[in-house]
Amino acid sequence: MNILYDERVDGALPDVDLPALLKALRNALPDLTILHRAEDLKPYECDGLCAYRTVPLLVVLPERLEQVQTLLQLCHQRGVPVVARGAGTGLSGGALPLAKGILLVMARFNRILEINPEGRFARVQPGVRNLSISQAAAPYGLYYAPDPSSQIACSIGGNVAENAGGVHCLKYGLTVHNLLKVEILTVEGERLTLGSDALDSPGFDLLALFTGSEGMLGIVTEVTVKLLPKPQVARVLLASFDCVEDAGRAVAEIIGAGIIPGGLEMMDNLAIRAAEDFIHAGYPVDAAAILLCELDGVEADVHDDCERVAAVLTQAGAREVRLACDEAERARFWAGRKNAFPAVGRISPDYYCMDGTIPRRELPRVLKGISALSEQYGLRVANVFHAGDGNMHPLILFDANLPGELERAEAIGGKILELCVAVGGSITGEHGVGREKINQMCAQFNSDEITLFHAVKAAFDPQGLLNPGKNIPTLHRCAEFGAMHVHHGQLPFPNLERF
Amino acid sequence: MNILYDERVDGALPDVDLPALLKALRNALPDLTILHRAEDLKPYECDGLCAYRTVPLLVVLPERLEQVQTLLQLCHQRGVPVVARGAGTGLSGGALPLAKGILLVMARFNRILEINPEGRFARVQPGVRNLSISQAAAPYGLYYAPDPSSQIACSIGGNVAENAGGVHCLKYGLTVHNLLKVEILTVEGERLTLGSDALDSPGFDLLALFTGSEGMLGIVTEVTVKLLPKPQVARVLLASFDCVEDAGRAVAEIIGAGIIPGGLEMMDNLAIRAAEDFIHAGYPVDAAAILLCELDGVEADVHDDCERVAAVLTQAGAREVRLACDEAERARFWAGRKNAFPAVGRISPDYYCMDGTIPRRELPRVLKGISALSEQYGLRVANVFHAGDGNMHPLILFDANLPGELERAEAIGGKILELCVAVGGSITGEHGVGREKINQMCAQFNSDEITLFHAVKAAFDPQGLLNPGKNIPTLHRCAEFGAMHVHHGQLPFPNLERF
Repeated sequence: MNILYDERVDGALPDVDLPALLKALRNALPDLTILHRAEDLKPYECDGLCAYRTVPLLVVLPERLEQVQTLLQLCHQRGVPVVARGAGTGLSGGALPLAKGILLVMARFNRILEINPEGRFARVQPGVRNLSISQAAAPYGLYYAPDPSSQIACSIGGNVAENAGGVHCLKYGLTVHNLLKVEILTVEGERLTLGSDALDSPGFDLLALFTGSEGMLGIVTEVTVKLLPKPQVARVLLASFDCVEDAGRAVAEIIGAGIIPGGLEMMDNLAIRAAEDFIHAGYPVDAAAILLCELDGVEADVHDDCERVAAVLTQAGAREVRLACDEAERARFWAGRKNAFPAVGRISPDYYCMDGTIPRRELPRVLKGISALSEQYGLRVANVFHAGDGNMHPLILFDANLPGELERAEAIGGKILELCVAVGGSITGEHGVGREKINQMCAQFNSDEITLFHAVKAAFDPQGLLNPGKNIPTLHRCAEFGAMHVHHGQLPFPNLERF
Repeated sequence: MNILYDERVDGALPDVDLPALLKALRNALPDLTILHRAEDLKPYECDGLCAYRTVPLLVVLPERLEQVQTLLQLCHQRGVPVVARGAGTGLSGGALPLAKGILLVMARFNRILEINPEGRFARVQPGVRNLSISQAAAPYGLYYAPDPSSQIACSIGGNVAENAGGVHCLKYGLTVHNLLKVEILTVEGERLTLGSDALDSPGFDLLALFTGSEGMLGIVTEVTVKLLPKPQVARVLLASFDCVEDAGRAVAEIIGAGIIPGGLEMMDNLAIRAAEDFIHAGYPVDAAAILLCELDGVEADVHDDCERVAAVLTQAGAREVRLACDEAERARFWAGRKNAFPAVGRISPDYYCMDGTIPRRELPRVLKGISALSEQYGLRVANVFHAGDGNMHPLILFDANLPGELERAEAIGGKILELCVAVGGSITGEHGVGREKINQMCAQFNSDEITLFHAVKAAFDPQGLLNPGKNIPTLHRCAEFGAMHVHHGQLPFPNLERF
């Protein structure tokens, strides 16, 4: 299979004297697990975005804080770059290794340190899986709200690094809204606490700054998350539409009616058919689009909201609105949505998942635009997304073994993101920028803004050793990429008016 | 009246050639309102914290963005410090002027630019008053949630600078949680947009970093806030206690029961009596403490929650629980609380309002500690606070005309804040650090953390021209202050065990 490789990042890094580095590491950290043989390194060559691959110089698997601290100090002294990795489920290549850098795998930090039902928080190590926090809190009637579709595998350290979202983030917020405190190690190996047990912290809000910073500002060593009481009741409505744009309009109208659903998801026909084939969720395979709308809270409230939402959906042109009749059907409705990505994987040799966010009112127009791009590039696009948030996940279907298809998939993906920016949206909702969207950052931000990002990065990491080549492009790269800066739609997307 | 003056900040600043600066300003900005005569400057010598006063070098009152831009460019070239000020209602001296700096008053930027009911946001200039946003949104059934007690006067630019809170922030979040986007000018006069219309933004979360940065990172020129639908119903319970600690415990138990009230406020006997005398709210003047608990949402939900909260309160030792029988009584209950500060002002020549935040479970212990400190220092302390948030507002009563009382008030205030830090809390909840709590920052943070704050500040403002001497202490000051770093309670507050 073809892969995308960007030689500019690794090319710009200084060479590392590997034998000397290995020796120094083994001297300083005799009990640290270090992988250095080609066959041991290979499994780490990519994260969840496997279109980009680089075999790392070394992989280390520490188990104790002091090991990470010593490692960072050593790398800092020697000017060796470090890329942190959690479970490796990220979808933007945020944990893509460097050929001249160490991959720091935090997976062994997998202990839940405290579940505090009174204070409604959980204190956990970064390698703890997202779902296992909710499982540990369940006996107290509590849970951790952000629920990326990968929650069975992804770890909380990675969630912090990417400011992960999920189906329920519309109502309950992103990772950043559900954190109390993060312990980090700086690039120099200093321990810092960002945030506090109290509601607000004095000084600059470094916790929010750090959340979503994609491993560029420090290494997460402990996370204190907020826990929420489980809603008494949750119900799901499934609405079918004959026209995708109508479904998009319905989303804006539900929110406009003053209802904030627990989840509000949309799938188009291609995604519906793939999911139905795979999961047998009971979706109408002839619908142009479906909306799944979950309402949660206390019984009376949910009952009223279901009626109001059903009325809005019908008014917006839904040809059918079904309420999941029991918990089993509700679970099936969600299983179809949560497995939409692998389901699409079954109907195409490869797919490429995008993650743009747009103002909700622009949904109909952007859906039309994607459909036009799909025709223009000759690649199928399935749409599955967090509609309530305006967070789209177009899945571009392609075959990497056909010459040029991967590059065409990347090109249409870039165009879709630029379209998102042109209508006032952003190039990522919850997957992060990573290596994948670094060129599109040049479309999102102007050079003053990018310069400021670099200055903030330098405040934490003046040598640029933490995860270089991700998230924030150099101005040089932007010039090379030749991107129009389309922020605020001042420079309109070509033919935007057509959609 | 005595005032507190800290000559270290102004002393460290370079002298300014006032005639030359005035001439340059008038040349570059012929239509800018500039105040320079002593009698015109005097009204600006303090913000809402009048214990600190400094007459500014100059006051400017721009009306257009381009004026602010040119002013900043000019000050940047000449190395003249700039302090931004909104309505001047801040309670931590965040807008305290500098004798060698320009006070930039943003009050004339007072236009509401857009109320967008579909997108549920309002776009406003920074000088727009907090309450007037909700008033403008009211015809659409929407409102802006954060409600500082000063909301009738305070402006949104200041709310952003201080990350302002209020009675309803327990349920609806602080300012940072209710912002979509902020337009700023950098110290060099460059226009930047932080945040976006979409749910999340790529790159570092500079919007969150900027919010609460107390005028040290840039000047707010436009704010886009989220609007929420008004709750259908709101009810208030008033519970009376014979013992302050029981009331503190009841707070933790309400939250522990899985209920998040719209507001959960506590007042102790001194505050109750002062408020009752002033407002005739119907408070029980013989109670040791009262709790006000507001529940909002849909009818059925609120009805259930009222019953559950009443049961928890009774169980926790409340001698009486009253439900406000109608909207008029509900308004009276809140009027007593919202006017508690001026009410205390009627029973003491001066008072000093603190703003510590503690984990809720520590409320009983900290209340005991404050009472012990009150006795030790011989000053009365009234407690009025956002109990649900753990955000305390002890009001220290004193008479500035009696020698030494102001200094004693400042000293006990410092001790109360250090007590908050020692139990795992923080030195500010919603009023900010400003000039007032700059020494206590040394107790809250270690030198690595403070160094990082300075590095972040330098990323935005390398010369340190924006609001110098506020928010982040120099390491030199911390050494001078001789503060123990008590973060995480590692170095316990002396005698903490006693409380």
